[in-house]
Amino acid sequence: MNDPWPPQTDGATRPDARLTTLIETLRASAARRDLAGGHAAAEKQLIADAGLLALAVPHEFGGRFGKDGTRWGALYQTLRTIARADSALAHLLGFQFLQVATVDLWGNAAQRANWLQGTVEHRWWWGNAVNPLDTRLVAQADDAQGKGAWRLHGKKGFCSGTTGSQMMTVSGHDPATGNPVFAVVPTTRAGISVHDDWDPIGQRQTDSGTVSFDAVEVRAAEVLHRPDTPRASLRTLVSQLVLTNLFVGLAEGALEEARDYVLANGRPWVNSGVQRAADDPYLQQRFGEMRIKALSAAVLADRAAAILDDAWGQGDALDAATRAEVSLAVSEAKIVAHRAALDAGEQLFDACGARATNAALALDRFWRNARVHTLHDPLDYRVRDVGRYTLTRELPEPTLYT
Amino acid sequence: MNDPWPPQTDGATRPDARLTTLIETLRASAARRDLAGGHAAAEKQLIADAGLLALAVPHEFGGRFGKDGTRWGALYQTLRTIARADSALAHLLGFQFLQVATVDLWGNAAQRANWLQGTVEHRWWWGNAVNPLDTRLVAQADDAQGKGAWRLHGKKGFCSGTTGSQMMTVSGHDPATGNPVFAVVPTTRAGISVHDDWDPIGQRQTDSGTVSFDAVEVRAAEVLHRPDTPRASLRTLVSQLVLTNLFVGLAEGALEEARDYVLANGRPWVNSGVQRAADDPYLQQRFGEMRIKALSAAVLADRAAAILDDAWGQGDALDAATRAEVSLAVSEAKIVAHRAALDAGEQLFDACGARATNAALALDRFWRNARVHTLHDPLDYRVRDVGRYTLTRELPEPTLYT
Amino acid sequence: MNDPWPPQTDGATRPDARLTTLIETLRASAARRDLAGGHAAAEKQLIADAGLLALAVPHEFGGRFGKDGTRWGALYQTLRTIARADSALAHLLGFQFLQVATVDLWGNAAQRANWLQGTVEHRWWWGNAVNPLDTRLVAQADDAQGKGAWRLHGKKGFCSGTTGSQMMTVSGHDPATGNPVFAVVPTTRAGISVHDDWDPIGQRQTDSGTVSFDAVEVRAAEVLHRPDTPRASLRTLVSQLVLTNLFVGLAEGALEEARDYVLANGRPWVNSGVQRAADDPYLQQRFGEMRIKALSAAVLADRAAAILDDAWGQGDALDAATRAEVSLAVSEAKIVAHRAALDAGEQLFDACGARATNAALALDRFWRNARVHTLHDPLDYRVRDVGRYTLTRELPEPTLYT
Amino acid sequence: MNDPWPPQTDGATRPDARLTTLIETLRASAARRDLAGGHAAAEKQLIADAGLLALAVPHEFGGRFGKDGTRWGALYQTLRTIARADSALAHLLGFQFLQVATVDLWGNAAQRANWLQGTVEHRWWWGNAVNPLDTRLVAQADDAQGKGAWRLHGKKGFCSGTTGSQMMTVSGHDPATGNPVFAVVPTTRAGISVHDDWDPIGQRQTDSGTVSFDAVEVRAAEVLHRPDTPRASLRTLVSQLVLTNLFVGLAEGALEEARDYVLANGRPWVNSGVQRAADDPYLQQRFGEMRIKALSAAVLADRAAAILDDAWGQGDALDAATRAEVSLAVSEAKIVAHRAALDAGEQLFDACGARATNAALALDRFWRNARVHTLHDPLDYRVRDVGRYTLTRELPEPTLYT
Repeated sequence: MNDPWPPQTDGATRPDARLTTLIETLRASAARRDLAGGHAAAEKQLIADAGLLALAVPHEFGGRFGKDGTRWGALYQTLRTIARADSALAHLLGFQFLQVATVDLWGNAAQRANWLQGTVEHRWWWGNAVNPLDTRLVAQADDAQGKGAWRLHGKKGFCSGTTGSQMMTVSGHDPATGNPVFAVVPTTRAGISVHDDWDPIGQRQTDSGTVSFDAVEVRAAEVLHRPDTPRASLRTLVSQLVLTNLFVGLAEGALEEARDYVLANGRPWVNSGVQRAADDPYLQQRFGEMRIKALSAAVLADRAAAILDDAWGQGDALDAATRAEVSLAVSEAKIVAHRAALDAGEQLFDACGARATNAALALDRFWRNARVHTLHDPLDYRVRDVGRYTLTRELPEPTLYT
Repeated sequence: MNDPWPPQTDGATRPDARLTTLIETLRASAARRDLAGGHAAAEKQLIADAGLLALAVPHEFGGRFGKDGTRWGALYQTLRTIARADSALAHLLGFQFLQVATVDLWGNAAQRANWLQGTVEHRWWWGNAVNPLDTRLVAQADDAQGKGAWRLHGKKGFCSGTTGSQMMTVSGHDPATGNPVFAVVPTTRAGISVHDDWDPIGQRQTDSGTVSFDAVEVRAAEVLHRPDTPRASLRTLVSQLVLTNLFVGLAEGALEEARDYVLANGRPWVNSGVQRAADDPYLQQRFGEMRIKALSAAVLADRAAAILDDAWGQGDALDAATRAEVSLAVSEAKIVAHRAALDAGEQLFDACGARATNAALALDRFWRNARVHTLHDPLDYRVRDVGRYTLTRELPEPTLYT
Repeated sequence: MNDPWPPQTDGATRPDARLTTLIETLRASAARRDLAGGHAAAEKQLIADAGLLALAVPHEFGGRFGKDGTRWGALYQTLRTIARADSALAHLLGFQFLQVATVDLWGNAAQRANWLQGTVEHRWWWGNAVNPLDTRLVAQADDAQGKGAWRLHGKKGFCSGTTGSQMMTVSGHDPATGNPVFAVVPTTRAGISVHDDWDPIGQRQTDSGTVSFDAVEVRAAEVLHRPDTPRASLRTLVSQLVLTNLFVGLAEGALEEARDYVLANGRPWVNSGVQRAADDPYLQQRFGEMRIKALSAAVLADRAAAILDDAWGQGDALDAATRAEVSLAVSEAKIVAHRAALDAGEQLFDACGARATNAALALDRFWRNARVHTLHDPLDYRVRDVGRYTLTRELPEPTLYT
Repeated sequence: MNDPWPPQTDGATRPDARLTTLIETLRASAARRDLAGGHAAAEKQLIADAGLLALAVPHEFGGRFGKDGTRWGALYQTLRTIARADSALAHLLGFQFLQVATVDLWGNAAQRANWLQGTVEHRWWWGNAVNPLDTRLVAQADDAQGKGAWRLHGKKGFCSGTTGSQMMTVSGHDPATGNPVFAVVPTTRAGISVHDDWDPIGQRQTDSGTVSFDAVEVRAAEVLHRPDTPRASLRTLVSQLVLTNLFVGLAEGALEEARDYVLANGRPWVNSGVQRAADDPYLQQRFGEMRIKALSAAVLADRAAAILDDAWGQGDALDAATRAEVSLAVSEAKIVAHRAALDAGEQLFDACGARATNAALALDRFWRNARVHTLHDPLDYRVRDVGRYTLTRELPEPTLYT
């Protein structure tokens, strides 16, 4: 394999050996696993073995976050590197980071100690059942169990990463107040069933099926009381920047695949007048355009991560205006990355030609992965938010997606 | 189902009842058959039953071409209508037209009489083994068999429509002269094996696998002597305009699916401020842009068909300059249709949202079909040819693709 | 001068000799007159001398419309041809057609006879003061003058073509009813002052200044009683299709200028590896892209004209739905033409290079003309209307612009 | 005036008060001066008074470069800020930096001491006559004057900034060797005539006319002996990054003007359904898209400046590969900035509407300035270079433009 990306992409710390091996392993089986879909138990084990599960756990609890300059910027670089080879598994790792961050942002001292240290010690994979647009999961106060305890009944869809996880975050709808109830429970808790019903056109190994809850017990100590602070609402931005970096990785990965394919298999077009495909002026132009888009996405994602890291570092002092600026930076990066990923997934084929459409190569997985993953929320409203701010200086309110 | 397309698309004659039934049947099973791939025997029978196999056979031989104004324009409209529902089966029918046209353009009087009438009487499906970029099929003169006879040895790839066909066109490479040898043979001729090795990411039911030839006999009377005239080279343009109209149909079909989906399942975005998805200003804008592109492609394809019909009507009097103008018109239409099809296949999802990515819906088939089918030859060189002509008035030479 | 446009643009009847001479004359002075701005009296005389003023006058009144197949399609082709050389003077002629059509659509028998025959006999240039968004011109009933007579007081802006005209259409606001009062008056009528205050960045010789009215008499016989029929509302579409065809002409004209300049002055780029600029692969590509856009605009404009001509031919039988379909076809063409004109005006320079930016050449007039002229109404709402119809089949209501 | 740019654009140090005053002054007269063209003596004096002429002079010679972290990044930020208001005067200042850098990179110890200190002490404005594509200026060895001395005869075009300058760089063509001869001379040297023949469609006050030389004396001590090192070839990249930052400033400036205009004068469209133009969903979208492009350009320009600053800091140790990486980063930024500037110049009008086309506002100057300035070298070859590197890892050779 060629080196993964033009060295000129600067800042990016080179991955360590364990990570490099992991990525090569993932890349080698990515096409096959895309076709098969389903749970990637062995690959999740490799990710755990590479020591990545505790990257988002603060150093004080035994993790890597905050040590040697490891902050969101570095975590996102890691995700991006993995996403070049396999954006589904990168998504699982990104959501691992997100659940860990949720505990870190919303947990009380005991919860943080238990669950963050537990993640390091037991190498927990975290799942979730918190999709905010799905309100079928009901939380009922259960005083019989104890004050502050709940029972969960119903279902959640799009529960990425829950299959094969040990712990999970969950949010139920409390019909008495209309508010959500957030909690952490072990995935093995009685009454929880994780269904294997995820069958999408892309991002096929994100284990994002339905989870059903049959009178599942939630203890008072397991309930997360989300603070009403700007800092607590950074969770959404951590999540959106996970997606953004997956898009960047998809764009970069498609470009890498296109390059490798053209160098190995490219043939000059019959009336191009060149001897090697790599000398074709229009092919060079396509690579130039793909590179420009992937690079623009990467630098905007890096910028957003830096702004997030600054805000994160302010702790509880973070104010709403600064939080809104992080939100805008994330939206700006996500818009460009969204487009770069789709575009690279499509242009990959213009670069490689007809023979690259063989189903066994599954080179369409870049476009399919990008397409599935770019639909969580509509691009148009993100562009609108950026434009409204540009025009009126109206800072966006925190929402489920921004 | 809604009406298939804004009535405002003018000129288009409304499909007759048999065709309408055919298309509804194809549309109902298109997603399922896309996932399954393989040979669509039952659907090919429906196409035959709808009376479409002889559309390109001249009226004098019992077909429809030339009767009641039925010319290429009408044939391409029919293809386009089918392609909205299923571009793979539309491709099979388009290549049926192409092989019939090959006999009509290149055959002598006896050959035309035999094979064109035969197509009407026996309802032959035609396959082909003429992919010009694949030179593995060798033709050897076989005087033992008789003067002008040949034997074929070797293979051809991308032999669309050959599975399940009764007749086929074939081209072998004569190493003695370096020239191709064109012929028509029954698909059942001894030594011909049609392989089931077509497994692409799109256009999955075009039966475009490999055909191998083991000392296959070609009789002198079966050899097509391609005239060295501008008219004879119209074959390529007929073929390119088949592809163009499939792209137009894909763009229109994706738009139709998007519309049906939004009207049936669309939900307004959480902070859009509208009650119905169909009232969303950005969604309306997307439909506007998709419509504009599909319509531009359609009118350019109609224009190219009209120019082709004029040239076709000139018979052997057709000169090289007029033929070149047809070629340019076809390229202009194909460029716009290529882009419209890919774009609609992608935007379909922006219109429909995340739930439309369920694999069982196979809504990505529009993009995958367009992506596979737009790679026969590079768009860039087609744009170059148009640009070179615009700049220098240099008429393009006939090539394998233009 | 090279031939004005690739002959492959089909249908277009070649201009007659008088028109060809006119266009060459306009083209020769277009840059100089763009820099100077102001009234183009001599050039308007040339247009009159070329016999173009009565093109829209029905044959029965001595004009060309309806004779030998001369309908809107042919008129728009003429406008487009002139706009390639000078879109400001093409605008004046297009608005001549529009005022004539206004009389034809809205006038009673006597009015049509007087003013349509008068246009032929006296070679009147028509101006207008009807800009619907400017409500500063007030109409007051003036019974002293006679029943049904009015006095006009105030101003109108954007009164294209009024300087140097003999007749004009005018619309005043009647504060008593809130309705507009339409009329035809001689431009020399006492109290009318045509101001020379038009100084825009483009379309500089359209004489679109302010006209002020000081107690201007309008006789009862001069009042146009606009019928409340779909046919009467075709006026707006005639107007919008004038603009559309000017955009098409601008796109084609910019492409022509770019071609002439490159062939005469182009130098190959230092590391392009070609000997002639015209052989540069990227330059050929740019011309290809410009051609594709200009051609798409042209065929959509032709299609809209054909649909308009069909509707026009239905006379008073025209229904609202058919009228709405004309409106959609006009919007579809206008959107594509708008973009083609701006794009060609910009890419012209990429094709020609730095030396083409000399102010004396005024090659930026294509972009400036397109830019000014594409702002009458926002493109976004036109795209929305097309998209809304595509999605919901809701036919657009007649408005001031659609 | 509103604040100049969303505060969220981070890193940018806020301009100091003198600079703010300067920019407001330039902005207030920019439209008027664009229409007038010609030499901006008073404004150049304001720039000198604001202390900007010595920004590129190394701290050791009394300038600002290298002090308090002032490096290329900060200089380019300053240029960009000025370019938002007036890209012609920003160009003059950018070329001041470039000539200073030329002396710094290519001068010997005495030359650097004399001319760099002189720039600080005498507040010299620097011009140039070094346009590499113009070979009409001939250098002849003049031993009569002394060993190593030359006489210059002939002309140079595009001599930005020479009018009103005190010192200038010059390059003549030595026919004896075919090599260029670089030197520094006072602009007042006998035989030098600066012509007022610059009349382009944009960048009208860059004083980029022709300079003629009539047997102009060049002393041996005035000759610059360009080292054959990667470091010496950074001059070209400094120059290209000046242009890049002007494009960024143009994009940002157009967006600022659009915003100010819409907030002050915007009217909602008749059937938009909103009360204020600023609430229009499509207008917000346009601002979003403009912002995304301007921001992408800005972050890529910042990245290129950081990479340049790293390379600059390596001094003579800089190797060719590292220099090539700077070149690629500059090209990547320039491509995106080029497009952002043109696009913002055009969309400004879609945002503001028809009344913004009044010539006195000269709002088209953003597009015209961008259009003139983006034609020094063709974008296509820059994209090709980036693409070729992406595909083949072939590092670009230093050329006149890369």
